[in-house]
Formats: sequence, structure tokens, C-alpha cells
Amino acid sequence: MPVYKAPVNDTLFVLNDVLGLERYNNLRGFADATPDMIEAILGEAAKVAEEVLFPVNYSGDQEGCRRHDDASVSTPKGFKEAYGAYRDGGWIGLAVPAEFGGQGLPYTLHTAVGEYTSAANMSLMMYPGLTQGAIAAILVHGSAEQKSTYLPKMVDGAWTGTMNLTEPHCGTDLGMLRTKAVPQADGSYKISGQKIFISAGEHDLADNIVHLVLARIEGAPEGTKGISLFIVPKFLVGADGALGARNAVTCGAIEHKMGIHANATCVMNYDEATGFLIGAENRGLNAMFVMMNEARLMVGLQGIAISEVAYQNAAAYARDRIQGRSLSGPKAPDKKADPIIVHPDIRRTLMTIRAFNEAGRAFLLWTALKSDIAHRATDDKERQTADDILGLVTPILKGVMTDKGFDHAVMAQQVFGGHGYIEEHGMSQYVRDARIAMIYEGANGIQALDLVGRKLALNGGRAAMALFKEIGDFCEENRGNEKLSFFTKHLKKGLNDVQAATMWFMQNAMAKPDNAGAGSTDYMHLFGLVVLGYMWAKMAKAAEDGLASGDATREDFLKNKLVTARFFMERIMPETALRKIRIEAGAETMMELAAEAF
Amino acid sequence: MPVYKAPVNDTLFVLNDVLGLERYNNLRGFADATPDMIEAILGEAAKVAEEVLFPVNYSGDQEGCRRHDDASVSTPKGFKEAYGAYRDGGWIGLAVPAEFGGQGLPYTLHTAVGEYTSAANMSLMMYPGLTQGAIAAILVHGSAEQKSTYLPKMVDGAWTGTMNLTEPHCGTDLGMLRTKAVPQADGSYKISGQKIFISAGEHDLADNIVHLVLARIEGAPEGTKGISLFIVPKFLVGADGALGARNAVTCGAIEHKMGIHANATCVMNYDEATGFLIGAENRGLNAMFVMMNEARLMVGLQGIAISEVAYQNAAAYARDRIQGRSLSGPKAPDKKADPIIVHPDIRRTLMTIRAFNEAGRAFLLWTALKSDIAHRATDDKERQTADDILGLVTPILKGVMTDKGFDHAVMAQQVFGGHGYIEEHGMSQYVRDARIAMIYEGANGIQALDLVGRKLALNGGRAAMALFKEIGDFCEENRGNEKLSFFTKHLKKGLNDVQAATMWFMQNAMAKPDNAGAGSTDYMHLFGLVVLGYMWAKMAKAAEDGLASGDATREDFLKNKLVTARFFMERIMPETALRKIRIEAGAETMMELAAEAF
Repeated sequence: MPVYKAPVNDTLFVLNDVLGLERYNNLRGFADATPDMIEAILGEAAKVAEEVLFPVNYSGDQEGCRRHDDASVSTPKGFKEAYGAYRDGGWIGLAVPAEFGGQGLPYTLHTAVGEYTSAANMSLMMYPGLTQGAIAAILVHGSAEQKSTYLPKMVDGAWTGTMNLTEPHCGTDLGMLRTKAVPQADGSYKISGQKIFISAGEHDLADNIVHLVLARIEGAPEGTKGISLFIVPKFLVGADGALGARNAVTCGAIEHKMGIHANATCVMNYDEATGFLIGAENRGLNAMFVMMNEARLMVGLQGIAISEVAYQNAAAYARDRIQGRSLSGPKAPDKKADPIIVHPDIRRTLMTIRAFNEAGRAFLLWTALKSDIAHRATDDKERQTADDILGLVTPILKGVMTDKGFDHAVMAQQVFGGHGYIEEHGMSQYVRDARIAMIYEGANGIQALDLVGRKLALNGGRAAMALFKEIGDFCEENRGNEKLSFFTKHLKKGLNDVQAATMWFMQNAMAKPDNAGAGSTDYMHLFGLVVLGYMWAKMAKAAEDGLASGDATREDFLKNKLVTARFFMERIMPETALRKIRIEAGAETMMELAAEAF
Repeated sequence: MPVYKAPVNDTLFVLNDVLGLERYNNLRGFADATPDMIEAILGEAAKVAEEVLFPVNYSGDQEGCRRHDDASVSTPKGFKEAYGAYRDGGWIGLAVPAEFGGQGLPYTLHTAVGEYTSAANMSLMMYPGLTQGAIAAILVHGSAEQKSTYLPKMVDGAWTGTMNLTEPHCGTDLGMLRTKAVPQADGSYKISGQKIFISAGEHDLADNIVHLVLARIEGAPEGTKGISLFIVPKFLVGADGALGARNAVTCGAIEHKMGIHANATCVMNYDEATGFLIGAENRGLNAMFVMMNEARLMVGLQGIAISEVAYQNAAAYARDRIQGRSLSGPKAPDKKADPIIVHPDIRRTLMTIRAFNEAGRAFLLWTALKSDIAHRATDDKERQTADDILGLVTPILKGVMTDKGFDHAVMAQQVFGGHGYIEEHGMSQYVRDARIAMIYEGANGIQALDLVGRKLALNGGRAAMALFKEIGDFCEENRGNEKLSFFTKHLKKGLNDVQAATMWFMQNAMAKPDNAGAGSTDYMHLFGLVVLGYMWAKMAKAAEDGLASGDATREDFLKNKLVTARFFMERIMPETALRKIRIEAGAETMMELAAEAF
């Protein structure tokens, strides 16, 4: 059976040693998050993840969700109890302002906790995960009444939320959506249409489900400029907050999917359902973007989370399974064979995943901190720079972390040989679950296009320049540090590659935009490598500082960080050169064939 | 619903234009394989694949196999009829000598057919596929009586075969196997033990199942030198060839797997089952290697086959699905959006898969031709060189084609967005099915180790030197050809990288074998890239020759080959440099951590 242990020490290393969270005491909510408090919260989160959520992960996959004839949906055995315990722990509102029932703690901390809970049970965590996206949208765009009606119940977890964007004929291209909204005399709307792929669309974990639905108000302009966002609760809510009539929104079917079987992915039918406009008319995409940006970070998080739990299982198996002898002579001469962890190719696999997980975690928390700064800093310029970088790296985090998270689940499964292919070991589930993260919240090709086609050029490239400067400054500041020169040398090389590729786009993609599209995925991964390399350089510095300070209890821990950092720089970072070559090859060969020739 | 069309023209291009099959008329069986005959056979094979095997592929995955209380196993609906039609077509014996009921045609042709049938229905094709491996082992190592008893029925398809190697505690490390064989007075043996992961171990498609089983004769030496191979038929065969008593071999369970649901992967229990020694005592691994080498080529074939069918489905979807507008202006202004095949990132995906499929097919058929030469040529030196190269490239073909085949199934699935994640479109099945090919017949890490640790050094590196020379000669011969210089330039660069990496192993892995293990997977992929690049250079030459000869009917076809060749050289071939860097990084960082630190 699978194992999972929340990597609390690694998280603390990033928060304390690398990001220096205590330096941000001036941000709202950060003063409460003392190092002791953070350690205690992470310890509690680890317990919930390991003892409550994880035990129903494998069984949840095997059982899946079921839709009944009355259109109700059951989640797998044990999910109600596990969700109840998670909810009772107050985890949903960790970073939500106190006025709506939350604890107002840093989003960075909320993100750290999210890694553990998603690693333990990705399908289950999607129920409150979608709620959190909906909370974010209502917080920013909802009216005071909407906030007070919906937020406390959602923060409490009594109600959950959903995002309803996709329709059968349109996913990426929302301009084509057809769900319509007809204004009523009382200010509400009648919503009609069909939405598909609605995660957590119907289930038995909550008293009410608050659907956020994109629809087109009758007579609105065509395309994306005529889309509005509506709140469509499963049960209408009375003035006293009590649940009233059942709304005309039903689950028509649940999808038969490759993975995340324990999350109900629903076809939702709206048949003159009562909806309430949120934000301004025809500005629905704007409001939805709040949810989407938050959701994209959470999906990137899922990539790291699954990569971590898959890694832990592969490492445990590699220590336990005996097969063959070490190339350098028997390591367990008393046994019939050595544990397979002696084999370099198995270690290559484990180190590759590990080097990504640790840097990915740092990238995730560094990004979450940018979000905290963007939303909570008092200095305008500081807020803006953080927001710029947050916007720039969001598609990178989503795209790269989920592509790699899936690759690593596959690599971890491979360590098990044939045993990885049968469902009993749980590795197949990690591969099948991780696969969706590359697709939803904008397929990774769309993330790449968002990066190259939108984020890169925004405000004259201000965000990319700020980030290049931050990384360049780091290299410069540590130029004289001999212990770091190995790391900064490789990082600098990667930085040069991403800067050269950026320049190539400026020179070649303005006149021929296909050149941008052709290089977009490679650019996203090139940029991702540089950011991960930056994280490793920062972690190497923190580890060297820790060792220099004589931190004896963490000596092995810190030395292993340095070994892993070296592994990353030697074997993974050089991929930047390949990505740059591909980008500079341009669009020609890929645009030449006639569509019928494919 | 999924689509599949056998790529007959591409196969003919490889067989006729690239490999020039008609030049090998001196090989046994090749004179019968005239170009017209080959075209007719491929046409028939295409029909069987498209019309008989493919229609039950998706339903077979959904239904899966079932084991009943009496230990019998049912295959999915329609499998009996499809297998019957395949069998009646005489496809199993295509390349088997006529004296055992086959047609004695080239193995190369058999391989070409195998791509179509495995693309159409990988799970179903594994039943006759395993039979073919067993036929090969009996042909080489069986006694005259064993050949006459078993081969005609197996070639006919009335009986199927299996390979029984793996036990719960040993897969790769067969030296640990425990299944025992006790000699009987009549010259037979009583076989007892448990085997797992036995593909096609029990089913309802054939009258009898001929299990080839590795076991240890009582008192035999420990380790791999004490293993013998036995024939253990499900039903004992009388002197008259009639089926007799049921043997004591039963299916204890079928595995619950990630994919290939329609192939019964069985736990097989041997309880003093009657077995017959095949080949010499304690030389079972030798005999099994005949099966395994053949099986490895067939698994490499599965990689290409699934990559091809997944590609075809992605291409069809990309032409059909409308979403968004081309970056260079609307291409279908009459529609609400353009088909997604206008987007460069979609084309990058399709071209990447296509460039691999076409070169992979050439690699596969070129390898099969080496096998034909190794087994059928009259000249000793010609046979030996072909056999050397066959042995060298077998792990590359298996490892690289299946790693890439899986990657490409994932990429093709990605083209479908969310629709790729639900089972209805069939793309999930391709991903789940392709996954096993990286694992069985020796996990790909083992293939890499076989390449670096065994095949490379065999006979003083004779095989690698022969292949490097073949590729180097090709570059040299075409040095003056301006139309090819772009291709030979890139190929030469790749060749230099693989030669340098080989040299690095010679200088650094003798004293420190971990350096070989650490670079093995990268080396396998580096070598694979060079062979694929060689195939593209050969295909480019054939395409240029065809165009120069004024072949008007194939002008577009040949021009598209050249575009795809350029795409490969520009964007895929440069990966050789990265692989070389990784190899030269050595084993140090990956061997440094203590096992407990993972």
C-alpha cells in the first residue's frame, strides 16, 4: 500500500532559510505567523494529510463517484468523514480575512499546507479547492450582500463552490459560449444551457453548492466581450440565510475519466435556473480570471504534490525491493540481492524527481509570497513588481510543474517495474491523477501561449525584465562567493539562454506571430528551468549559510541540499540550450504541411 | 470514436525506396516477396487491422477479461471472432518456415504487418504475439519431436504460447527464481511454483496453451546457471497429436492493471505440472533469450504502433475541432473559429510525433531486415555483421521506441484537451496501453544497462564500430550532395556526440562502473536519436531521388518527407548534445546520498 509523509522540514527550510518569511512582518497577517506558529500549523496539516485524507485516497480511486437516478451524486466511502475533519480544522479559511470567518494568515502558508493535502488526496481536495477559487472571485467582485450571504458558509465548508466555464463546443475559446441569461424583473436572471467538465459539480459533502457560471445576457455582444458571471446556488438562499427552494440546476451525468475518479466531474444542466450577476455586466471573464489565476497556482501545486508522493513511494520501494547486485560489488552480501536503490539508474530517477520537487516547492512558495506581497504590501511599487512577476510566472508554474509532475509520476511508477502497472501499488493512480493537471485550468499549450503572447509583452515587458533583474542581481551579489560560483555559473548560462530566446521573439515574432506560437512551449519550459535553477541557487546559498553557522542538527540535511543542487545544475539545467535551439528554429517546418497531409 | 488507417504508403516507401528490399533477392524467402506481392499483402493486412481488429479495441478495453470461479478466463466480446479471422488469414505463420505450416516470407514483412495489427488492437495481438515468441524458441532449441508436436498447431493459431519468467520476488534478477522441476522416470519433469505477470496465460481463444516455463531442476546450481526451460502444455498432447489430460497448471488470478485490459495478465500456479525440458539442462536462459530478443523487437513495435494510431486520432481531431483563431489571421472566416490545426503549438505536437513515427518505422523495418540477413544470408561475414548490429540495436529499439511511444500517446491525448481525459474518446486507452511497453520484456532501465554494460563492449565493441561506420560512410558518400548536406551535417554532429559518449565510457566506466549505470538511459536515448537521424537522412535521400526521377504522383508525399526530415534535424536531433552532457556528468551526485536520505 502507498505511503505518504508530509515533508515539513523541507517546507520549513524554504519558508525560513530561503524566503526568510520573518522579514515580511509588515504584511497583513504575517506578524501572526511566527516561526513557532508556522511549525505548529504545518505539523497539524501534516497530521490531517497523513491520517485523515491519505487513508481514503486509494480506496476513493477504486470506488469512484456514483450518480443516482435522481441526479444526486455520492462520493466514495469515507469521503464525508475526511472532508468533515478537514473542514472542522478550519483549513479552508486559513488565508481568508477574519471578517468572513477566516484566519487571515499568509497565502504562502495556505499554499504550503495545500501541497500536503493535495499529495494525500488530490480528488478529495478538489472539493474545497474549487470552493477557494469561488471565494476568491466573490471576495474581489461580489457585492457586500453576496459576500455576507455566501462567504461565511463557504469558508466554513458547509457549502462548496464550482467554476462553470466549459461547454461541449468550447473550452479554450470562451468567446463561443452559448449559455444564456435572461434578466428578470427582480434583478435576478434565468440561466439556461449546458456546462461540461464541472469538477465537484454535484456531490454529497455539503449542504449547498455555489456555482459560478459564465453566461451571455440576452442581447449582449458576441465574443468574449459579452460574457457575464453569475452565482447560481444549488439551493436558493433566503434573506435569513436559510436554504430555500431547489434551483433548476442538475447533474446530467458524471464523466468516465482516466483518473481523479473520486472527484465528480459533471455535466451540469441549467434550465432557467435562478442566477445573480456578480460584478459588472459583460465583464464576466475579468471576474473569472481572479478564480483562474488562483486555480492555476493550485493546479501547479498539484503537479508538485503528486510528484512528491510518487517519489516517496518509489524511494520506499527502491530501498525495500532486492534485485541484482551493485555494479561496484555487493552492498547487502547477507541477502540474495541488493536493494535496487544501489543501482545508478534508479538513483538517477529518484534524484531527477527530488531535484524537481525541492525546487518546485520553493518556486511554489516563492510565487505564493509574491501573491501575498502583491495583495498585502503597503508600498505601491513593491506591490506592483510582485504582481507583475506573479502574473508572469503563473502560467510557468502551472505548465511546467504539471508537465513535470506527470513525467515524474511516470518515472516513479517505472521504479516498481511490473508492480507499478497493476493498480494495487497505487502508482497507476498517481500517473492517472497527475495527467489531468496538464489539461484543466487551461491546457499547458494555452499556458505557454498566455506566457509568450500576453504576459511577456505586457507593459513593455516590465515583468520579465524585473524577474531577469532579480535573478541577475542574485548572481552578481554572489559572484565573489566561491562556494556558490558553481551554481551561479550554471544559472547565469540559463539566464542568458532565456534572455536570448526573449530577444529572438522580439526580433522574429512581431512580423510572424507563428514564430511565437511555434516556440511557446519550449519557451515556457526554458523559463521554468531558469526559475527552478534560481530556486536551487537560493537554496544552495541558504544551505551554505546554514552549514557555515554550524547548524549541526541539520548538517546531513543541508549537505544533501547541496548535492541535489549540484545534480540539478549538472544534469537538468543544461536543457536550456536545447530549448533555445528549438525556439530559434522557428515555425517554418511546422507550418508547411497542408492540414490534410497530417 | 477512434479512427485508424494503416499507413501502407509509408511502409512501402521504407521497404522499396529506403531499404530497397528487391536487392535482397538472394535471401531465403525474399524472392517470393516481389513488390507487387508485398503491396498486396500489406493491403490485406491493413484490411484485417482496420476492419477486424480495430473495431473491438475500445470495447475490449472497457470490458476487460474476466476470470471465473473454475479458473477459466473469458476475453471480451468479439475477441474470439476477431482472433479467428486473424488466424484464418494465416498471419501467424507469415515468416515461419513452410515445413511447420508457415509461408516462409521475410521477417521484415511480418514486422511491417505487425505494426498495423498492434496499432489496431494491441491487447488482442498479444495473444498471437506471445505465440510467436514461443514458436521462435521451439524452432531454435526444440527437439524434432517437440517441433512436430507443437509448431504446426501454434503456427495455425489453434494453440497459443506464453513466456513464464517472473515470480513475485524476482523479475529482472532471474537468478533468484524458485519454481522447481523434479525429474521423472519417463524423462518428463514435475513443475511446481508460482509465476506472475503472465500475458495471455489463460483465455478462451485457443484449444491449448503452450507455456514455456523457466524452472530450476532439483539440485541445479544456484543463480542463473541453474535455470532450465520447460514446455508445459495446458492440455497434454498424445502421440497422435490429440489433446489429453488437463495439466496441473491453473490461472490463480488476473491482474487489475492500468491498461491492456483485454489481455489476460495471469498469476499462474504450477502444482506438479508435467513439463518437458527444452534445450539443455541449466541452459534455460539461453533458450529464453531467443524469445526475449524477438519479443523486445515486438515491444518496440508496439511503441511505434500506438504512437501512430494516437497521432492519427490527434490529427483528425485537430482538423475537426474549431477553437480560437490563427495567429496570422482567420483561416476559416466562415466559421466561428479556426480548426485547431492552424495553431503552431498543435502542429509542433503533431510534427514531433510524426517525425518519430516515420523514422521509428524505418528503424523497425531496418532492424527486421538485419534480422533477416543475420538468419538467412549465405555469406558468413554479412550474417555476422547483421547479427552484431541486431543485438546492439535491440535494446535501443525497445527502450527508445516505447519511451517515445508513450510520450507521444500523451502528447496526442493533450491535443484533445479535456476530451482526451475522458475515456469515451479512446485516447486514455492509448496512454494506458502504451505505458506497459516501457516495463515488460525488461524495463527500459534494463535495456539501457544491457546496451551499455553488455552489448557495447561485446567482441571489443565490434557492433558499435560497425554501426558507426555504416552511418559515417553514409555521411561520407553523400558529402558532395548539396540537397543532403543539411541532413548529413546534423547527423554527423549526432554521430560525433554518440562516439564521444562511447569514448567517455571507455575512459571513465572501467574503473568506476557506476559511471556506466549513471549514463545508461541517456546513452540509450542518445544512440536512439542518432539511429533515427540516420533513418531520416536515408529517407531524405530516397525522397530527393524520387523527386529527381520525376515521380509526379508522389510529389507531395515526398516533399512532406523532406519537411518532416528538416523538422527532425532542427528540433529533435540537437538533443544529442544534452544527452552527452548528462553522461559526462558521471555518477558522483547520484551516488552520494545515503539510502535513508531518499
